[in-house]
Amino acid sequence: MSGVKKSMPMVYKNVGRNGLRVSQLGLGTWVTFGGQVTDDVAEELVTIAYENGINLFDTAEVYAAGKAEITLGKILKKKTWKRSSYIVSTKLYWGGKAETEKGLSRKHIIEGLRSSLERLQLDYVDIVFANKPDSSVPMEEIVRAFTQVINDNHCFYWGTSRWSPMEIMEAYSIARQFNLIPPICEQTEYNLFQREKVETFLPDIFKKIGLGTMTWSPLACGLLTGKYEDGVPLHSRAAIKGYGWLKEKVLNEEGRKQQDKLRELAILASKLDCTLAQLAIAWCLRNETVNCVLLGASCVEQLYENINSLHVVSKLTPLVMADIDHILGNKPNIRIFRKNEIIQQQQIQR
Amino acid sequence: MSGVKKSMPMVYKNVGRNGLRVSQLGLGTWVTFGGQVTDDVAEELVTIAYENGINLFDTAEVYAAGKAEITLGKILKKKTWKRSSYIVSTKLYWGGKAETEKGLSRKHIIEGLRSSLERLQLDYVDIVFANKPDSSVPMEEIVRAFTQVINDNHCFYWGTSRWSPMEIMEAYSIARQFNLIPPICEQTEYNLFQREKVETFLPDIFKKIGLGTMTWSPLACGLLTGKYEDGVPLHSRAAIKGYGWLKEKVLNEEGRKQQDKLRELAILASKLDCTLAQLAIAWCLRNETVNCVLLGASCVEQLYENINSLHVVSKLTPLVMADIDHILGNKPNIRIFRKNEIIQQQQIQR
Amino acid sequence: MSGVKKSMPMVYKNVGRNGLRVSQLGLGTWVTFGGQVTDDVAEELVTIAYENGINLFDTAEVYAAGKAEITLGKILKKKTWKRSSYIVSTKLYWGGKAETEKGLSRKHIIEGLRSSLERLQLDYVDIVFANKPDSSVPMEEIVRAFTQVINDNHCFYWGTSRWSPMEIMEAYSIARQFNLIPPICEQTEYNLFQREKVETFLPDIFKKIGLGTMTWSPLACGLLTGKYEDGVPLHSRAAIKGYGWLKEKVLNEEGRKQQDKLRELAILASKLDCTLAQLAIAWCLRNETVNCVLLGASCVEQLYENINSLHVVSKLTPLVMADIDHILGNKPNIRIFRKNEIIQQQQIQR
Amino acid sequence: MSGVKKSMPMVYKNVGRNGLRVSQLGLGTWVTFGGQVTDDVAEELVTIAYENGINLFDTAEVYAAGKAEITLGKILKKKTWKRSSYIVSTKLYWGGKAETEKGLSRKHIIEGLRSSLERLQLDYVDIVFANKPDSSVPMEEIVRAFTQVINDNHCFYWGTSRWSPMEIMEAYSIARQFNLIPPICEQTEYNLFQREKVETFLPDIFKKIGLGTMTWSPLACGLLTGKYEDGVPLHSRAAIKGYGWLKEKVLNEEGRKQQDKLRELAILASKLDCTLAQLAIAWCLRNETVNCVLLGASCVEQLYENINSLHVVSKLTPLVMADIDHILGNKPNIRIFRKNEIIQQQQIQR
Repeated sequence: MSGVKKSMPMVYKNVGRNGLRVSQLGLGTWVTFGGQVTDDVAEELVTIAYENGINLFDTAEVYAAGKAEITLGKILKKKTWKRSSYIVSTKLYWGGKAETEKGLSRKHIIEGLRSSLERLQLDYVDIVFANKPDSSVPMEEIVRAFTQVINDNHCFYWGTSRWSPMEIMEAYSIARQFNLIPPICEQTEYNLFQREKVETFLPDIFKKIGLGTMTWSPLACGLLTGKYEDGVPLHSRAAIKGYGWLKEKVLNEEGRKQQDKLRELAILASKLDCTLAQLAIAWCLRNETVNCVLLGASCVEQLYENINSLHVVSKLTPLVMADIDHILGNKPNIRIFRKNEIIQQQQIQR
Repeated sequence: MSGVKKSMPMVYKNVGRNGLRVSQLGLGTWVTFGGQVTDDVAEELVTIAYENGINLFDTAEVYAAGKAEITLGKILKKKTWKRSSYIVSTKLYWGGKAETEKGLSRKHIIEGLRSSLERLQLDYVDIVFANKPDSSVPMEEIVRAFTQVINDNHCFYWGTSRWSPMEIMEAYSIARQFNLIPPICEQTEYNLFQREKVETFLPDIFKKIGLGTMTWSPLACGLLTGKYEDGVPLHSRAAIKGYGWLKEKVLNEEGRKQQDKLRELAILASKLDCTLAQLAIAWCLRNETVNCVLLGASCVEQLYENINSLHVVSKLTPLVMADIDHILGNKPNIRIFRKNEIIQQQQIQR
Repeated sequence: MSGVKKSMPMVYKNVGRNGLRVSQLGLGTWVTFGGQVTDDVAEELVTIAYENGINLFDTAEVYAAGKAEITLGKILKKKTWKRSSYIVSTKLYWGGKAETEKGLSRKHIIEGLRSSLERLQLDYVDIVFANKPDSSVPMEEIVRAFTQVINDNHCFYWGTSRWSPMEIMEAYSIARQFNLIPPICEQTEYNLFQREKVETFLPDIFKKIGLGTMTWSPLACGLLTGKYEDGVPLHSRAAIKGYGWLKEKVLNEEGRKQQDKLRELAILASKLDCTLAQLAIAWCLRNETVNCVLLGASCVEQLYENINSLHVVSKLTPLVMADIDHILGNKPNIRIFRKNEIIQQQQIQR
Repeated sequence: MSGVKKSMPMVYKNVGRNGLRVSQLGLGTWVTFGGQVTDDVAEELVTIAYENGINLFDTAEVYAAGKAEITLGKILKKKTWKRSSYIVSTKLYWGGKAETEKGLSRKHIIEGLRSSLERLQLDYVDIVFANKPDSSVPMEEIVRAFTQVINDNHCFYWGTSRWSPMEIMEAYSIARQFNLIPPICEQTEYNLFQREKVETFLPDIFKKIGLGTMTWSPLACGLLTGKYEDGVPLHSRAAIKGYGWLKEKVLNEEGRKQQDKLRELAILASKLDCTLAQLAIAWCLRNETVNCVLLGASCVEQLYENINSLHVVSKLTPLVMADIDHILGNKPNIRIFRKNEIIQQQQIQR
């Protein structure tokens, strides 16, 4: 398990119905870069990722208050990889303490992206995301500002993160109304315990406007590694200061129910000859709506383990997927607003 | 209960953020006109409705295969009411057996509306609805066709029925992109047992684009009258040929659970000195998102009973509403897609 | 005074910067047609007006609840004047008792104009006015509906009446944004005692968007004829049932102050060899912003007197105008928002 | 009074319905920077302002013929504050003596802003204002030029100063017609003696197009400090060469009446335990239309005094506000253009 099998190539996908080709696995930097891991480990992680075909590195101005971007930037500068061979994405919303350094005003989108580029030591990122919606700014201002940073060549595309389907469609409408550039991608949480948005809403938006989907937390902040099976270990994320919410989540009643399901899933994983974490990641990859699953790793072994999930995907036959759904019991229903359709059709056919 | 108290005037509301003023109660013709009721009863129903301030009569090309429109048209022709004093709406989707007489192609929207107008003996309807979405027709064709029938003065407004929020937003985007006319209203089911769409999605669409809401089945096809308490009576809708689905729904396990809740609601209704049906209708009227509740009635007494729901609305205090929510146990949650926001804010503030 | 001097031709002006050529005096039908005067007198008034070069007849759906339009229509039908030789304008807002027969919804604009055309027995009017703004209807709906009745050839132009400058500019913006037809004219009150809007705001709107100005009540409902000098005479308008507000206005303190000013103006009028009413009308005609002054007359003599105001215009030299301003003491100030401009210019020039 | 109470945090507001977040108090540089005060005092003023939460510094190319911008630029360069933590605004109109260095031609807007940026040693300002309207330049040229400097990243937003509502709406129309960027803010005078524009016109424009309001001269060039109570003191602004207009204004009849009112207001202020100047500023802050009040200060004590107005706002209860209105006697009337409406409605209802 201490390396990647060469025989299994990375799969690349278009981000939605847009031209950008992204590896199915991406490397995230949340919590880890500039924080949990040393710069040396970070460099190792980026190198392993790149060498195994991962072409997307995702960060945000808010991660470790800018230090995640600085770390990633240093590594990319040190490496001699061609800029055109990889994709960098960052996210804007919380850029500093001042009133004008937050949110999605034109001022912050333009200034925030410049600061990110300085920290990253890059001329441009590939995708800049709105890290969350900002209802205090008119959508026209937001879409105009993202269009401008694209026209300024400070990024090639823009996307949304944690936006509701309605907010995304409003951005799209405004872009169409004023001939501006619409977002290409929504970045959102997706894992065995958090399924609804990716499985019910995003496929619909993809169908309508070609929006891509990039997902984070495939392991639900570590819950799906099974490491919390017997409580909260000392060096786990749930033990970090400021992550009390995660600890709480592990230990409450619903958390204990989830542990039961995880035990069942672990048995299934071992039957498939993979770890629980690999099963969880492969399960994300199997969803056709998802263009890229962002991995977070705090050590080299973990990254190898996660990348090897690629080998598990083909094992997830329809039967296995049905088993997983049965264990989880949380398959979201596609909303049905169209009852009585059948009778009406009958009426006319009589 | 055999008449309407004169003291209670009808309330009128704008359809969303649009100019059309509609009475809070409307008269639907589904199942009844051209079918369940004789033309004489239909005339009585329309007359009582109009004289009590109802200004909207809703029908569809599919109802009784066109006979509902014919019946409504005859009545309106016979009466000498000014055309400008009332609103007629119809719906298009199932217009005939031929392949080209269905769906939302430009051909069927234009031809279908002409046929409806002939059956109704009218020069125009006020609102024409797309009776359901049609994913096989490009949205641009649909919005162009509805814009055209408006420009041709065959109707004043167009709306949607049973469309998902995403479909509505797509229609709006297209209208803005090509300077066409957006829909003004979604018509959808809403009652004590069917709450999600009206309570979670439509308020959001109203806020974004001013879309109005018109609802049908306030009594859930009669379920909420309490008449199925002891099974399916002989002359009820669930006993009609072709409504086997309704019979099934009444008798299955979920149906029996609903009967329990209805018994509790009936006790509450009698405390409020009204019938269960009146409670159910008044409960719909209390929702501010709803501009018009369509009533279906198969006899004069039932219509009087339903109109008198207007007197019950003021009795539905916040406390009573909370009681109802408690009995029903189905209050929909507003979807939350924004977890972890707090931690990220904490990170930057450290 | 019992005829019009042939030597003095009517002056014609463009309505704002639009193509329509209108006589400087127009004949209004408010209060008189279908109400205060018999149909025979009405016919005489229309005939005298037309023969003396008045080419605009103004009415509204609300005047005498539709009877003003019926009377005007009958007269125009009886006369054999070419339709192309005169201009008819009507106004929409209060079209009937039903909820849907009021305001500026698309439904009422289209239906209301059709009803007006039926009453007038005309295929089209030249200008249709929004009789007042309607903040409950989106401006887009209003401008689209007026554009549609123009495209349907039910009128050639549309205008506003009693709209604020801001509302007019909003309509203009919407027309420009969606490539619709902007209004050509504002109709508003203007007389010696009511000057601000016409003298301060409308010239500005004319300069910006070419909007024309048509004015009514040049005699302030008779106040400026001097007939209320000694109270309210028996057959005056202020004695009509429903015009208590006018009686009140005549008799209150401000009313008495106005009577003092009128006594001074009457002396001036007699010096100019004209009546007080003629002075008041000529004073309106002298304002270059005003394209057309609507006269209301309840008898033939009054109309002759009013038309003869055309002879008085040239007597209103700058000196006389200054005298009038001095007597009235109500010359509105052009709003100055630009103080300190001079110093700033000095600063830079030092 | 020689410091700012720490307990009272600055309030931040969006500029109209736009994303930019501005402190409720801003620091102006008119008369003072590059003129009345030394560069050391200027630096102290900017520092105190910034440290007390003021995030907006306002200047103009015309102030002290460019020296105000040079002074402000030096100070901002010397300080190590993040550029994204504050807002700089400047204004264009009088840029030099040459014929082509004035007004709002495309040439001067683009060249003028570049010169301002050089003097300020900045890459961009946040807002550039048109310091006054320029009727000799087509509005299309003006709006295109401001859109261009925004697209060039020489500023983020543009605004107007001393423009009439009509001029603002014309700019907005042009922006909508040609898909350009509309202005976000009008900068205008507002104080106890100059109320009309801010209280009657600007709220309406905010409602229609979301325009923000920034105000200057809260103390009416010092009149409202009470310092002219006994004539013109030696070192006051009214004694400065070139400010004869101000001296004249203090000493004429209206000036003396204002002094009477100021004496009454001073009594009220002392009851509220604040200075007259603080009362005057707090009164501006209480107006919800106003997003930012620009302070001018010629010494440190004065700035502290003015900032402490923030503590007075909550003391201005509705009762106190009514007292102030009573003393001033200048509350502007909302313009009514809609007389006779009532009668017309009565007519139709008879």
